[in-house]
Order: sequence, then C-alpha cells, then structure tokens
Amino acid sequence: MIDFPLSEVYQLLEPGPVTLLTTAQHGRANVMTMSWQTMLDFEPPLVACVVSSGNYSFTALRATGECVIAIPSRKLAAKVVKVGNASGRDIDKFASIGLTPIPAREVAPPLVADCFANLECKVIDTVDRYNLFILEVVKAWATSPLRRRPRTIHHRGYGTFVVDGETIKLKSKMP
Amino acid sequence: MIDFPLSEVYQLLEPGPVTLLTTAQHGRANVMTMSWQTMLDFEPPLVACVVSSGNYSFTALRATGECVIAIPSRKLAAKVVKVGNASGRDIDKFASIGLTPIPAREVAPPLVADCFANLECKVIDTVDRYNLFILEVVKAWATSPLRRRPRTIHHRGYGTFVVDGETIKLKSKMP
Repeated sequence: MIDFPLSEVYQLLEPGPVTLLTTAQHGRANVMTMSWQTMLDFEPPLVACVVSSGNYSFTALRATGECVIAIPSRKLAAKVVKVGNASGRDIDKFASIGLTPIPAREVAPPLVADCFANLECKVIDTVDRYNLFILEVVKAWATSPLRRRPRTIHHRGYGTFVVDGETIKLKSKMP
Repeated sequence: MIDFPLSEVYQLLEPGPVTLLTTAQHGRANVMTMSWQTMLDFEPPLVACVVSSGNYSFTALRATGECVIAIPSRKLAAKVVKVGNASGRDIDKFASIGLTPIPAREVAPPLVADCFANLECKVIDTVDRYNLFILEVVKAWATSPLRRRPRTIHHRGYGTFVVDGETIKLKSKMP
C-alpha cells in the first residue's frame, strides 16, 4: 500500500462502488459490506454512510468512532458477497472468508490488504434518525496510482452486480 | 414512461450512477447533474443527496421541497456534462442543451423524458450543516422493466466516467 492523496479520495467513492467497512472493538476486528454511502465534501474528504442498527458493526462504530472503508475490485466479488451473507456475531469473517487484515496508521480497525484502496476514517458526526454516520477520511492508501485503478463492482440488489466497463472522457468544468 | 415499483427504486440508485436533478420555482424549471447521493431506506425509498448552496438549484429545492431525480443512460453522457458545465442562472438548460421536460404527477418539477428512469421526490428533512437533503421518492417511472435497464455512467472526476460493463450474479442473502 502506498500513500493516496486525500484530495483524490472522492474519485474513488463518487462512482458508487461496493465497499467493505472494518471496525474493531475489545480487540476483535469485523468487516461488513456496504453500498449506501456518498461523498459529502472534497477536502478534507467527508463521507456519509448508513450502518443499520441491525448490523453487528453498528455497536463498534458507535462506541469507537473509527472505521476503515476498503474498496474491493471485481476479483474479490465472491468474498464480498460472503462478507455480506455472514455476521461478525457468529464468526471471525477475516479468518473464515480469507481476507487479510493489516494495521492501519491513524485508527484501530484494520485495513483490508486484499482491497486496492483503504480509507482510514473517524466518525465526526451522526444523524441518528437515519443511522447515518458522517466520516472524515484521515488517511488513504492504495496499491497503485489512480490511473491504473482496477474494475470495481456496483450492487443492483440480490447479489447482482454490474462491473466497471469502458471509461469515457468528456470536457468538463466539474472536479 | 411506465409505473416503476417504489420497492425497487434502491436497485436504480444503489449502483451509484450519475443523475440529473430537476427543480421548479416561479414557473421556471431547472436541471443539474448530481453524483453525491445515497439510499437511506428501502421503502418508502429514502435518498440523501448533497445540493451545494453554491448550486442554483439549491434555492428552489429549499423553497419548494420538491425535485425529480432522473437517471440518464450512457448515450446521454455528452448532454449530462453540458448540464454540469452550465448554470440555470444564465440559461434555460432544457431548451439550450436539448432535454425534454414532461409533467410529473406528484410534484411540480418536470420529469426528463430523455432519461430511462424518473423519481418524483419530496424533501422530508435536511441536515443543513452538510447541505444534505433527505428525499422520499413518492412516485417512480421507467421506460422499461428493470431487467432491460440501459448502461449508466459513473463519475470519476474531471469529466471521466466509467460506463456499466458486464453483470454478474452471485448467491446472496442481501436485498
């Protein structure tokens, strides 16, 4: 993993990929799949994400205020679905599904070494009535520069995913 | 446009496509491009989206509490970028860019006939410190059933878009 500029984090999340969210509490790490997230601001990068109070990760995220958002590529799709089908209540998902946790720098939850990008996040605010967490990305990592980014997956419901296809470039004034 | 089930709206937005947002005020409609949105709940479908106070659409959305989220396919990409590069302060974007507004049923802002799906929305809440609008989708339309959905575009920044590629289906317990 190499340093990834915070100013470019929105370019990873704005396209709407499925992500993994890691948490840690009482010395035990967990990971869940997530799709309900959006950028809120460019820099410092702010992200809003929904972690339902029914998710096992909710308690750890609420109590510790720390998480990592990891972005898996297409080749990790089968494991991503397994993460979504299991609960950290019952098993150690990293060990049983075969994902590799490695230490983060600014937060206690681990990075996912199998993912091509990892965003260390701190909870700076919540909107409790929607189980909405407002995260600031405090440190970002990637396996390579952005222009060599692998294909990501986007969830269409019930285990159907659309994979990134061609890239097009149009003249735009928008960041 | 045919009726589209509210219970399936999340399957349109969860993959993270670029969308168009229409508003109307004082008898004048406007349209902006948007990528910073996420689902908040399945049914009734709730959406959180960021409309910056710097956007011309902000005032109308705040004042009227109504909008339409339209989802363009890949073939509309050039017009989508033109919408993002212009401001409703200066021009009638529908007329000058060549998009077709048609009346919605539950709200005053128009549907975009050129888009394959249109979601009529009412603002039910705001989180002002992030320019975040909480929308309830009250009526949905599409040009065809979901299984024949056209390819969408996802913004990676500075006019670079990734287009939907292959679809994969994995066994999942998740909706």
